[in-house]
Amino acid sequence: MEDNAVIFVGDKPVMNYVLAVMTQFNKPVSTVTLKARGRAISRAVDAAEITRNRFMLNIIVKNITIGTEAIQSEDGKTVNVSSMEILLAKT
Amino acid sequence: MEDNAVIFVGDKPVMNYVLAVMTQFNKPVSTVTLKARGRAISRAVDAAEITRNRFMLNIIVKNITIGTEAIQSEDGKTVNVSSMEILLAKT
Repeated sequence: MEDNAVIFVGDKPVMNYVLAVMTQFNKPVSTVTLKARGRAISRAVDAAEITRNRFMLNIIVKNITIGTEAIQSEDGKTVNVSSMEILLAKT
Repeated sequence: MEDNAVIFVGDKPVMNYVLAVMTQFNKPVSTVTLKARGRAISRAVDAAEITRNRFMLNIIVKNITIGTEAIQSEDGKTVNVSSMEILLAKT
């Protein structure tokens, strides 16, 4: 049993990420980390909430951290983007 | 000295909320809670990160919680919206 699975949340529909979380927990892994940057942060929260309220009632939010990442944009500039990690675990 | 100030993060520019956080800490209060729902969640994270990285280096993220709120929409339907609270404190 692997310890942790990481899922990067981007621009896809939120249910894609809900399904990814459930797939990982059913492998099984003991914890899943949702990682998101910028506007995808609210989608990561949605994915965590939908998973634990509607599909896997035995999942808890174990930890949440926020941070800032320096991203190199296409024209060479560095922009700071907020990031977030949500650690989900089975009870 | 009041204990905690609550700031609701909505659709305004992020710097409005950064300024609001700094104003509260300078009152002073000991902690500030940023509350946001839906898409404003990523703006709340931005406001927390900008405040503590650029303006008030003695501020830490003490706790983050996420949840779901049932909102009554204008046509009478109930929709579930993700919510988030970021608790900031002076070190």
